[in-house]
Amino acid sequence: MTEDEVVRKIRKILDEAGEHRRIALGIGDDAALWQPSRSHRSAISTDMQVEGVHFTRSMMPLRDVGRRAMGAAVSDLAAMGARPVLATVALAFPRQTAVDDLLDVYRGLAECARRCAVSVAGGDLSLAPALTLTITVVGEVRPSNVKTRSGGHAGDVVAVTGPLGAARAGLELTRQKLAVDERQAAAAEEALRASQPRLAEGKFFAASANVTAMLDCSDGLAIDLGRLADASACAATIESVPVHEAARSVATLLGEEPERFALGAGEDYELIVAIRPRAFAHVSMRYARCFKRPLLRVGMLGKGSGLTWNGAPLERSGWDHFSA
Amino acid sequence: MTEDEVVRKIRKILDEAGEHRRIALGIGDDAALWQPSRSHRSAISTDMQVEGVHFTRSMMPLRDVGRRAMGAAVSDLAAMGARPVLATVALAFPRQTAVDDLLDVYRGLAECARRCAVSVAGGDLSLAPALTLTITVVGEVRPSNVKTRSGGHAGDVVAVTGPLGAARAGLELTRQKLAVDERQAAAAEEALRASQPRLAEGKFFAASANVTAMLDCSDGLAIDLGRLADASACAATIESVPVHEAARSVATLLGEEPERFALGAGEDYELIVAIRPRAFAHVSMRYARCFKRPLLRVGMLGKGSGLTWNGAPLERSGWDHFSA
Repeated sequence: MTEDEVVRKIRKILDEAGEHRRIALGIGDDAALWQPSRSHRSAISTDMQVEGVHFTRSMMPLRDVGRRAMGAAVSDLAAMGARPVLATVALAFPRQTAVDDLLDVYRGLAECARRCAVSVAGGDLSLAPALTLTITVVGEVRPSNVKTRSGGHAGDVVAVTGPLGAARAGLELTRQKLAVDERQAAAAEEALRASQPRLAEGKFFAASANVTAMLDCSDGLAIDLGRLADASACAATIESVPVHEAARSVATLLGEEPERFALGAGEDYELIVAIRPRAFAHVSMRYARCFKRPLLRVGMLGKGSGLTWNGAPLERSGWDHFSA
Repeated sequence: MTEDEVVRKIRKILDEAGEHRRIALGIGDDAALWQPSRSHRSAISTDMQVEGVHFTRSMMPLRDVGRRAMGAAVSDLAAMGARPVLATVALAFPRQTAVDDLLDVYRGLAECARRCAVSVAGGDLSLAPALTLTITVVGEVRPSNVKTRSGGHAGDVVAVTGPLGAARAGLELTRQKLAVDERQAAAAEEALRASQPRLAEGKFFAASANVTAMLDCSDGLAIDLGRLADASACAATIESVPVHEAARSVATLLGEEPERFALGAGEDYELIVAIRPRAFAHVSMRYARCFKRPLLRVGMLGKGSGLTWNGAPLERSGWDHFSA
């Protein structure tokens, strides 16, 4: 098959994935064109997933790799309070990759793109020693609704949009057989393979002046809350870690403390928010009414710096591409 | 060194590279924000460069790899008639890469970014088996000034913004010692290592209603003019191939026909334009006055399909990631 034929197949998959109303000129020219909203700021984020570093093919099918990569990229827009508009996709692949495997990457990311109303408007293809998927997403947000990491104040309540650790539990279940009940195993697998970026939740928080800071939990609560606290020039205290029930079971079977397992669990893509203390009860009530699940209180921002859990400083260890 | 320390060094290099007036929020949050122009369309393009596929470290220093990658990405904006605004940079690198080598990639791309008034507003870093650099650029263009590949008509004159083949000549000179005179060798090396995207020229053509189609010559005239002709549903005849004098010398020393050498030479990043025949003399006179060098007539668009050179069909062979 020639590159032109493969590109035609990719375009067909992507064209079927949505409406593309905002795209004035899509795939096939030197650049794609769109009409930005006049009343919004534009937002952009780039996310890279490399085989052998972020995933292996034994861990999940390539369709899930595509879906997760698009989900991770869109989650960064959700965390700014932005709505997605379009994406570009650069895929590098080893010479021996079957064309249908490549197309599976696009099928997966197109599935997430359709659900999130993202048009894939361009990209690039190349050979490379390892499958490498780089997705850039563009979105838009009203200037008054922008939520950064740096707006938190001492005294703000910290909360997350859902219990943590399910995707990490799903990952452990792909690595070894564990006697977890079926329903929990299914939930963990779903979290690993098809987790949804929290776009509606991001929009909800973006519209509230009482939400002072927001980011997504992609590297684990310990690391990401640390980032929010640092950016806001605050300390943070974790009072309770909301552990997903599948994560609790898996951690227990592995002989790990469930809270610690969930603290270090990334890629759940829940949002972490800081909320003015006097408004927390009101915001969390409205959240529960809107999303039919509770907003989970995690802790507080305070004066100073550093992260505390169970009364002791919490090491923010996590994946580091330079010390790996 | 930790990832955070490396990111701080990268930010310093990028911060020094420009004014960033248009960027409302840069590197360091989940997404970067900017204020798009109210009167323009936004444009986006993604370009990937992989070690061992697009470049080798013996071919050129990593600083040039960065500079060329940014130049190639910005050239796609030039070819739409767009002005650049910002870029994101995803860099994957092998474990044993020295930090200073990585920073060299950013030093090179920052140099090109400064010259082209592009702010690097975000990106990603990861380990990978081969150095892989993915750059996404965003620009903007007045709706009335957009030039696509598909606007050409039978009868239009085809021209390029400069002689072709210098970068390919430079590449050959990195591979083998050839008895080329010093001035030509320097020009070829300059074309390979520091070629400039034709932003001013793209803007000039974008403002002219007599320019019907445009793209950049990144894969060689044979392939790229073929793309313009196909997209415009036209045939194309190449009457003369403007060969860079360094390319002529190198091709002759290699025993190749200079015109054929230049036809297959990519990465010069000259622009290819289609111009209404009655306006060609006027446009080329204005071009010469503005840029102090001639607009070079290459051939014509005609009815039908396919590419003709010297009275015979021209095979559009070129790099294909799937048949490579």
